[in-house]
Amino acid sequence: MKAVRIMDLGNHAGETVIIKGWLAAKRSSGSIHFLQIRDGSGIVQGVAVKAEISSEVFSLAGSLSQESSIIVKGKVREDKRAPGGYELSLEGLELISLSKDYPITPKEHGTDFLMDNRHLWLRSPRQNAIMKVRHELVKACLDFFDERGFIKIDAPILTPAACEGTTTLFETQYFDQKAYLSQSGQLYMEAGAMAFGNVYCFGPTFRAEKSKTRRHLIEFWMIEPEMAYCDLDEDMRIQEEMVSYIVKRVLEKKNAELKLIGRDTTLLEKVAPPFPRLSYDEAVEILRKEGLSFEWGSDFGGNDETVIASKFDKPFFVHRFPMQCKAFYMKQDPQNPKVALCADMLAPEGYGEIIGGGQREDNLEVLEEKIKEHNLPKECYEWYLDLRRYGSVPHSGFGMGIERALAWICGLDHVRETIPFPRMLYRIYP
Amino acid sequence: MKAVRIMDLGNHAGETVIIKGWLAAKRSSGSIHFLQIRDGSGIVQGVAVKAEISSEVFSLAGSLSQESSIIVKGKVREDKRAPGGYELSLEGLELISLSKDYPITPKEHGTDFLMDNRHLWLRSPRQNAIMKVRHELVKACLDFFDERGFIKIDAPILTPAACEGTTTLFETQYFDQKAYLSQSGQLYMEAGAMAFGNVYCFGPTFRAEKSKTRRHLIEFWMIEPEMAYCDLDEDMRIQEEMVSYIVKRVLEKKNAELKLIGRDTTLLEKVAPPFPRLSYDEAVEILRKEGLSFEWGSDFGGNDETVIASKFDKPFFVHRFPMQCKAFYMKQDPQNPKVALCADMLAPEGYGEIIGGGQREDNLEVLEEKIKEHNLPKECYEWYLDLRRYGSVPHSGFGMGIERALAWICGLDHVRETIPFPRMLYRIYP
Repeated sequence: MKAVRIMDLGNHAGETVIIKGWLAAKRSSGSIHFLQIRDGSGIVQGVAVKAEISSEVFSLAGSLSQESSIIVKGKVREDKRAPGGYELSLEGLELISLSKDYPITPKEHGTDFLMDNRHLWLRSPRQNAIMKVRHELVKACLDFFDERGFIKIDAPILTPAACEGTTTLFETQYFDQKAYLSQSGQLYMEAGAMAFGNVYCFGPTFRAEKSKTRRHLIEFWMIEPEMAYCDLDEDMRIQEEMVSYIVKRVLEKKNAELKLIGRDTTLLEKVAPPFPRLSYDEAVEILRKEGLSFEWGSDFGGNDETVIASKFDKPFFVHRFPMQCKAFYMKQDPQNPKVALCADMLAPEGYGEIIGGGQREDNLEVLEEKIKEHNLPKECYEWYLDLRRYGSVPHSGFGMGIERALAWICGLDHVRETIPFPRMLYRIYP
Repeated sequence: MKAVRIMDLGNHAGETVIIKGWLAAKRSSGSIHFLQIRDGSGIVQGVAVKAEISSEVFSLAGSLSQESSIIVKGKVREDKRAPGGYELSLEGLELISLSKDYPITPKEHGTDFLMDNRHLWLRSPRQNAIMKVRHELVKACLDFFDERGFIKIDAPILTPAACEGTTTLFETQYFDQKAYLSQSGQLYMEAGAMAFGNVYCFGPTFRAEKSKTRRHLIEFWMIEPEMAYCDLDEDMRIQEEMVSYIVKRVLEKKNAELKLIGRDTTLLEKVAPPFPRLSYDEAVEILRKEGLSFEWGSDFGGNDETVIASKFDKPFFVHRFPMQCKAFYMKQDPQNPKVALCADMLAPEGYGEIIGGGQREDNLEVLEEKIKEHNLPKECYEWYLDLRRYGSVPHSGFGMGIERALAWICGLDHVRETIPFPRMLYRIYP
């Protein structure tokens, strides 16, 4: 008899099957044991009735502890009240390994304790569901770009120079020189866009920031597309199309998981292009109308973002930030040299920035000047300047932090639940 | 008029279209200029006939240099002799940016020069084609596991401890402690398998090896699945199924690219399960029969692998290596305690190992003993030992190096061509 996975039980109604998994929980009432069996693909209730099975099997079922690994044999019975729609009438049971004093019990645990036990915490229904939504979200991003003919160009992690300043870089010795962990694949994606037209990378990025907020991870994953012959308007159009695509996909394929997490999906269901587009100036005006003092030229803080975002119930853009608060490679707006052709996408419900992007400077002389102004080592950027020497074209791109996007889509309070093994300030275990 | 991509020209036969791209090459014969136009999605020949267009456009076409960025307008004409099946009768031409002295000319260049210009070299037809095969190979791997219900669990890159020894690790300061760049996501995938049943990760891994061979990269990408309730036999079965799947996919979808690279695909077309399975002992016998002196208990060197692989014309397994040459987490063969329940997959045609994997030790006491024997710091592995304390099950997995697999599938001499921005001994630019 071949083992089946719990998610496939619907194809085996009425049959006797084998399931290989773990005991998630147990309840007993004298002559019946109710076993909650999980196998990673789902949870099913196995019902062991004393009168129907051997006394050895019944007594073994009664002796099982939480997270013991078991192989069960049973008949699949349709049951409308069961979470997955099916129950199992237990016929046989084999104990693989008895778990003793599993640390994560049904009672409440502190966050530090759960984080120390992240390798086990992932088995809990809520964490399990979040990771499945993450899987779908990532897959949806890749599919979105693949369907549109983008080529995946993996950016290097070990880099010789800093993309956006050196203070928040992790440094390592690379044979006879220093190297730094990448904070963004963008510059490499620009080279890719000139070679392939449309490209993207999806990989880990690193910021050694001493920030301990609910929105910061030290190591996080970004999807970073870059498009040749693309301006800021088109860039924003692709962003709203992508975000709508992934939200729709997650709603379709991971509805049960969102329900388990307790996500109210009303607002998510409204996510569709076009997204509102607000200039930086208009955003500043909102803040001032709310009585906040905000100096033109600063970047928005978390609180500012929350105030602005409270005006919208779907994602929106803030575009054309002051040049002075943006990176050297941003293209100046020819209509207004004080601002850059850039845009951030902010999620509603207080989640703030999930995407940053814009049009890149494509003029060689201007870019050389910017590198000088920002006191960056020109020799590190010679290859980057080559992209302007040989066939420069208008081009744009963006980066979406997977974890922040996931926090919003799942409605989570803290990004620590959005990645399998979070790296945070002072936390690198497990 | 909307711009179209060259790969989509087939949908526009007879129409006048706009293409945004670069001049890859040019040939002139007095009254006709033949422009090879690339846009990253393909190459098309644009034919500028003096008698048919304005003298300005004709003279502009004649003045274009290699890699100048251009927007062309022209009528799509079917032409069986053309590489993509279509040609363009030029009607209009706009110069975006003139490229001066593009460094990579049609003449031969040395490897160091090309590597220094990797950001431009990617535009060359051969490198472009290899990256497109890479894209397809990676996508095929992800699709393979997604279709089978595996969950993608991204492994952390910054880790507190060494997975397989510390001599080849990149070290960095992680706030108040040391951290190391991951050499493998496997241990984390084992935690994932206990939570989700079947999982995989796909990410960069790092080995600070002072090796300068045609098979070594410092930074490379691995796909690492891990499966609960899975033994070595099933592990090998999934490996051969996966490799056959990706080879088939690449042959189907990237045939033109393989042709351009000059790959003879005869042997690739034969890749189908089952793959031959050779024990380590049988492999040693082959070496000895060939007159090589080989001591039982050593690992195979590159030359040994080549000799063994020459006996096969499709990928094959060598299984059950001596315990002494394998990592601490390998499970001992209960039939023969001298060997481990592990297997390498070797590619034919001299490409050697592309996959390493096997069954993991699932017994708590045995694993604790192994950690002691290997002088590893037990406190770093407490979470890993938890996986044996709470619901341990037989489990197996493997890791495939994307670059080595790609080198084989494309028939390349050196892995430096298999990754967009290679990191090699002393090379970290661009």
